[in-house]
Amino acid sequence: MEEECRPVLNTGLRGLVIADTRISDVQGAAGKLIYRGYLIQDLANTTSFEEVAYLLLFEKLPNAAELKGFKEQLTAERDIPPEVITALKTRPKDAVVMDILQAGVPLLAHHDPDVTDQSMEAAIRMATRLIAKFPTIIAAWDRIRNGKEPLKPSPNLDHAANFLYMLKGKEPDEEDGRFMDTCLVLHAEHSFNASTFAAREVASTRAHIYAAVAAAVGSLSGELHGGANMRVMEMLSEIGSVDKVEAYVNQQFDAGRKIFGLGHAVYDTDDPRAHILAPMSKRMGERVGDTRWYEMSQLLEKTGKAEFKKRKGKDIYVNVDFYSASLYYAMGIPIDLFTPVFAISRISGWTAHVIEEYFAGAAPKPMLYRPESEYIGDYCGPDVCEFEPLQERG
Amino acid sequence: MEEECRPVLNTGLRGLVIADTRISDVQGAAGKLIYRGYLIQDLANTTSFEEVAYLLLFEKLPNAAELKGFKEQLTAERDIPPEVITALKTRPKDAVVMDILQAGVPLLAHHDPDVTDQSMEAAIRMATRLIAKFPTIIAAWDRIRNGKEPLKPSPNLDHAANFLYMLKGKEPDEEDGRFMDTCLVLHAEHSFNASTFAAREVASTRAHIYAAVAAAVGSLSGELHGGANMRVMEMLSEIGSVDKVEAYVNQQFDAGRKIFGLGHAVYDTDDPRAHILAPMSKRMGERVGDTRWYEMSQLLEKTGKAEFKKRKGKDIYVNVDFYSASLYYAMGIPIDLFTPVFAISRISGWTAHVIEEYFAGAAPKPMLYRPESEYIGDYCGPDVCEFEPLQERG
Repeated sequence: MEEECRPVLNTGLRGLVIADTRISDVQGAAGKLIYRGYLIQDLANTTSFEEVAYLLLFEKLPNAAELKGFKEQLTAERDIPPEVITALKTRPKDAVVMDILQAGVPLLAHHDPDVTDQSMEAAIRMATRLIAKFPTIIAAWDRIRNGKEPLKPSPNLDHAANFLYMLKGKEPDEEDGRFMDTCLVLHAEHSFNASTFAAREVASTRAHIYAAVAAAVGSLSGELHGGANMRVMEMLSEIGSVDKVEAYVNQQFDAGRKIFGLGHAVYDTDDPRAHILAPMSKRMGERVGDTRWYEMSQLLEKTGKAEFKKRKGKDIYVNVDFYSASLYYAMGIPIDLFTPVFAISRISGWTAHVIEEYFAGAAPKPMLYRPESEYIGDYCGPDVCEFEPLQERG
Repeated sequence: MEEECRPVLNTGLRGLVIADTRISDVQGAAGKLIYRGYLIQDLANTTSFEEVAYLLLFEKLPNAAELKGFKEQLTAERDIPPEVITALKTRPKDAVVMDILQAGVPLLAHHDPDVTDQSMEAAIRMATRLIAKFPTIIAAWDRIRNGKEPLKPSPNLDHAANFLYMLKGKEPDEEDGRFMDTCLVLHAEHSFNASTFAAREVASTRAHIYAAVAAAVGSLSGELHGGANMRVMEMLSEIGSVDKVEAYVNQQFDAGRKIFGLGHAVYDTDDPRAHILAPMSKRMGERVGDTRWYEMSQLLEKTGKAEFKKRKGKDIYVNVDFYSASLYYAMGIPIDLFTPVFAISRISGWTAHVIEEYFAGAAPKPMLYRPESEYIGDYCGPDVCEFEPLQERG
C-alpha cells in the first residue's frame, strides 16, 4: 500500500486517492473521460444508454444478442408497483422532485425480494431494476403532481424514448429520442464524484444497493453537485436575453460570485462532455425555433472565460452542466427535472460502483469507510467539563 | 493545514484525520467518549436524552428554562403528517424496518416548509423535527405492520417513555422509561462513524438535512455498522443457552469467524458504553424474570476475550452493541427494531454534524467531499479500447 502525504484536514478529501476502481477514469489535465476502457467521445454518438449501462455493469460492450437480452430485462422491469404509485399520490404536489426520488428508492426496495440476498447476482438484478425504474418513477411523479394519471411504460420504445413518452404522453420523434439517449450516455459515470462516493460509503457497511443509491440521490440533490444544471437554467432565465450577458458576467465577478456551469473540481480543460452537448443544444434550439438559450450560453462561456482570465490571470472551463441546461430546456424538460434526469443516467454508474465496493476482486478488499476527526471542542479548555446537575446550571 | 502520510488506498480512510469537529471526541486508547466537553459516564445516569440532544445542537447543557422550552418544542413536533401515515400503510408488512425509516425521512421532508431555507435557524428547526419524529415514525410502522392503528404521541411523557408508549400501547413504568432514556443518551453521538460521515458527505453538497439524514439511515442499516446489535441478538438466540457458549466461541474462532459485539474500529479498550449497559441488561433481565441473555452475554464476553487472547496473542474488547442486544430484548423491543432504536438516538448526533458541516465557524470551511480514485481498468492494456460498432462485436 502506498503512502500519500497531503493536507487532508478540512479539504474535502480533495486530491486524495482513496480507492482503486475499474469503472471509469477522469483525466482532469487531459480532459479525458473513460468508461471501462472507452473514451466518452467514442461512446457518445455510437452507443445507446442500454449499451453503456451494460458496459458499466458487466465490464464489456454487449454484442447484439447480449444487448437484446439486456434490453428485454430492462423493459420487463420498467413498471413500478401500484402500491408505490399509491404512496406517491399521498405526496404534496410542491415537493422537491429529488426528495420524491429519494423516497422512491427505498419505497421500491420494500417490494424487492432480493434486498436480503448479498450475492453478486442479486446485486446485478437489483441494479437492473433500479436502472429500469428510475425513468418510470420520475415520469409518474411529474404526471401525478400535474393531476394526471401515470402512463404505463411502452415496451416498444428504447429506454430514453420511453422516458420522454411517459413524461409527455406522446412518443418522441427519432431525433428527440436520440438526443435524450446521448444525454444519458454522457452523464452515466464520473468516478468518485460526491454522489457516487456517498453510495460507496453506504455500501461499505454492507447496506443493500437501494440504501446506497438513496444516499447518492441525496448527495446529487445538493446545489454544489447535481443541482448545478438547474442553477444554470435559472441563471439563464434571470439574464433573459443575449444583450444582457456581458453585464451579468461583470456583475457576478464584481460581487465575488461565480457563474454556474463554469469551473469543475476535476478538469483543467473544458469538460469533454460539454463539447458534445453544445452542438446538440444549438440543434435542439433550431428545431424548436428558439436558439436564445443556446446563444446566451455561448456568449456567457466566451465572456465568462475571458473576464475570468483578465481578472484572475488563469483559465476557467465549462463543465457538463453548462450546455445540458439549455438543451434540456429546449427539449421541454421542466427545470426541476434536470437533476432527476441526471439521476436517470447516473444510476448506472452508482450501481456499478456499489457492486465494485461489495465485490472488488484482486485489489485489497475495501473496508467500511470510517475516517477520523480532530476534536477541537474547547468548551472547558483542554480538560473535560465538570458536570453540573440541571438545577445548578445558570 | 497539516500534512499526513498514511496508506490511504483501499483502507476505508481508516486512521485518516479528515476534518475537525467540536461535537465529540472518541479517545480510542483511553476508552473515553466525550460529547461537547462532557464524559459519557457523567451524562449517562444524570441527564435525559432531551438534555443531550440540546447539548449536541446548541453546544451547552440547558438550564431548567431552556430544557423546558426545548422539551415543549420536541413535544409539539412529535406528530407526523396523516399523509405520511397513509403512505406507510401502502408498504409491504415484511419490509425491512430500516428501509421504511429511510423512506420515512424524505417523506417527512416533503411536508417541511423549511427544506429550501439554507439558514442555520431553519436547519435547527428541521433537526428538532427529525429528533421529535423519529420515535413516532418507527412506532407507527411497527403498529401498522402488526395490523394496528398508530397511536398519537402522548404529550405527558418524556421522549424515551413516549416512544415505548407509542410502540407498546401502554405507558412504561419509571424504570423502563429511564432505561430507554439512558440507551438514547449512550448512542447519541460517536464522531465520524460511517453513518455520520455519510450524512456529512451528503450535506457537503449543500443538500438539505433530510437528504443527509436519509443517507445516514442507509449507512446505519448495514450489518457492519448499526445492524450489528441485531446480529448480536441473533447470535444469542442461535446459541440458545449458557452451557453452549464455550462451544460456540471455539466453533466461531475455529472457522475464522468473528463474534458479533466483540471488536471495534476505534477503541483499544472496552467501549465505555458497554460498561454502563451491562448492569442495565442484568437488572432488566431480573425485572422480567429471564437473565439468560445477560448471563450468556457475560460468559460470551469472558470466554471470547480469553480465547481470542490465547489464539491471537492480543486483546479484544466489547463494543456498544454487545450488551444493548440483551437489554433491548429484555425490554421487549422486537429484534428488527434494535437498529431503528439506535437511529432514534443517533439522529441527534447526525443533525449536529450536518449543521456543523454547513456552518463550521473559525476553521477553514469544509468543502464538498470529492476524493480521487486510481483507475486500474486494464481492459485494453494501458491504452484506451478501440471502439467497435455493435454489429462487429463478437
